[in-house]
Amino acid sequence: MTTLKNDRFLKALLGEPVDITPVWMMRQAGRYLPEYRATRAKAGNFLKLCKTPELATEVTIQPLERFDLDAAILFSDILTIPDAMGLGLYFSEGEGPRFERPIQNEADIKNLIVPAMDKDLGYVMDAVSMIHRELDGRVPLIGFSGSPWTLATYMVEGGSSKDFSKVKGMLYENPKAMHMLLDKVADCVIDYLNAQISNGAQAVMIFDTWGGALTTRDYKEFSLHYMEKIISRLTRENAGRKVPITIFSKGGCQWLEAQAQSGADCIGLDWTIDIGLARKRVGDKVALQGNMDPSVLYAAADRIREEVAFILDSFGKGNGHVFNLGHGIHQHVNPDNAKVLIDAVHELSKPYHT
Amino acid sequence: MTTLKNDRFLKALLGEPVDITPVWMMRQAGRYLPEYRATRAKAGNFLKLCKTPELATEVTIQPLERFDLDAAILFSDILTIPDAMGLGLYFSEGEGPRFERPIQNEADIKNLIVPAMDKDLGYVMDAVSMIHRELDGRVPLIGFSGSPWTLATYMVEGGSSKDFSKVKGMLYENPKAMHMLLDKVADCVIDYLNAQISNGAQAVMIFDTWGGALTTRDYKEFSLHYMEKIISRLTRENAGRKVPITIFSKGGCQWLEAQAQSGADCIGLDWTIDIGLARKRVGDKVALQGNMDPSVLYAAADRIREEVAFILDSFGKGNGHVFNLGHGIHQHVNPDNAKVLIDAVHELSKPYHT
Repeated sequence: MTTLKNDRFLKALLGEPVDITPVWMMRQAGRYLPEYRATRAKAGNFLKLCKTPELATEVTIQPLERFDLDAAILFSDILTIPDAMGLGLYFSEGEGPRFERPIQNEADIKNLIVPAMDKDLGYVMDAVSMIHRELDGRVPLIGFSGSPWTLATYMVEGGSSKDFSKVKGMLYENPKAMHMLLDKVADCVIDYLNAQISNGAQAVMIFDTWGGALTTRDYKEFSLHYMEKIISRLTRENAGRKVPITIFSKGGCQWLEAQAQSGADCIGLDWTIDIGLARKRVGDKVALQGNMDPSVLYAAADRIREEVAFILDSFGKGNGHVFNLGHGIHQHVNPDNAKVLIDAVHELSKPYHT
Repeated sequence: MTTLKNDRFLKALLGEPVDITPVWMMRQAGRYLPEYRATRAKAGNFLKLCKTPELATEVTIQPLERFDLDAAILFSDILTIPDAMGLGLYFSEGEGPRFERPIQNEADIKNLIVPAMDKDLGYVMDAVSMIHRELDGRVPLIGFSGSPWTLATYMVEGGSSKDFSKVKGMLYENPKAMHMLLDKVADCVIDYLNAQISNGAQAVMIFDTWGGALTTRDYKEFSLHYMEKIISRLTRENAGRKVPITIFSKGGCQWLEAQAQSGADCIGLDWTIDIGLARKRVGDKVALQGNMDPSVLYAAADRIREEVAFILDSFGKGNGHVFNLGHGIHQHVNPDNAKVLIDAVHELSKPYHT
């Protein structure tokens, strides 16, 4: 067992004191990096990259070689679970992810496979172990999953969607079936994240990318409820340290108070909310992760530093802030600008931790 | 001058007592109606439909023949203004709206044409007059425009966008240029809405479809500010009656308090917020318009009525509610379900107005 050399990310998630504000970026291993594009080209396609542990490890580590990041995040796709449940994931050029056999009715839900983590999703667990070994305690490794609701949107729509007509149709017309689906998916997510933790993930994050497409009532009933179920059943310890959980409902900042009651240690914020106001709303009940608009990275260095300073100042003094973007880093951002962001967070956050 | 036979929409917008809650639907004249598709086919293409006053009138009236609606809304496109400013609007199959000459720099902004309402946008004004005449006081006619920020996103991106990289790049990198653009567009919107009012529009609505993509600070500085400028310079009277103004920032319900200070009479709500909570937040400062999830219309009649009842109950007794969807009606909805919604609002709202 190796000692963690940089644990300020884990400490901040648990509201403990740190020297400077930790920072990582959603999609930090991604297409904006030329070295990522090279590895992906070597893999042949995106799915092959996800399913080859050596290559997933390679791209997970890449941003750490460039930037002074405080965490690594498993490189994978949120749709590995529906794929392992039997839906047949594929990627078509320009169309994004698609399923060969989307969920169309209750019979399809009943026929879903319960995947074995060490077999059907063994490639993810192998990647987690390999990355953990490769990191050798440099920074903590974040495991992740999509939320049941977010996964269900892809499973029912058959891919990405603009208006969620099919999945919302099922939700409104046959809520019983929707709950059956969400419950099955939640059980898989529990197994999936617990297996990631036992293979070396030191923190986990649940991405609820499409929670913000729901009404207030439906968000609580169809999305948050299942994240709470997951949280209540995760292994909360890894090698003697608590494994913090972050949930992130994009477009969900009006429900912060409810999210803070979920049992999660940290709430991810998109960029639309003022983080100082968010902190006032949740108090010290949870840590907050975020929340710079990823588009600020299209601006020059001075403007990026100005925005970092604004967010640090808005959060203010004290514990419980993990700096991040409010959404994944964009494909066309210059990597040098990501470096400006990361260095600015470390440099400018010192006065807030004295 | 004809007398308005049904004015409960105008009354509700101004917080005055009504017998039952008025209702209309965003995009009520649209692709979900077979008669609309027939007229569009007759026109040849979407732009021709917008630019031919007789046909725009025809599709504006169509939903009123089917449903017991309390308002008509001008059939047009939000991109008529950038088109008239010289950007060259066209529609490419599957890609949506595009501009031949998008804004790329300050010189492009300086070169924008200031359109003459009676000439460059005469076809819109002709449609407004013709619809007003055709309605003959049956229900009020709503005029509308996109907000300056929303129009600017299309003008800089050259069309629809997923991540707004170009327009946000300009906003963060060159805010001075962005303000110059927004100010020019706001001046056009003022002329445009005033001309609609003088041609017969009895209420106006500003659609800020992409306001919710901004940070809290930027929403106020780059979107709300320009809607306030417009509101402060609109003609507020038509044929002796006040012309109420509604603003609608999709994804913007966290900024309701600021919107309520804008001078608008009514705030449009998307479906994510509980309308009762929204009412508590704004008090009787403004009316509220909304906010059923358009996807509820994929469900059966009973479920639609249940959702209408829930929203009416959440708003509660008293004045200042215009029922609507939280976004435009979807293309694949069965028109019979729209009828269920509209009739349910009228039938179930009586007890809230005694």
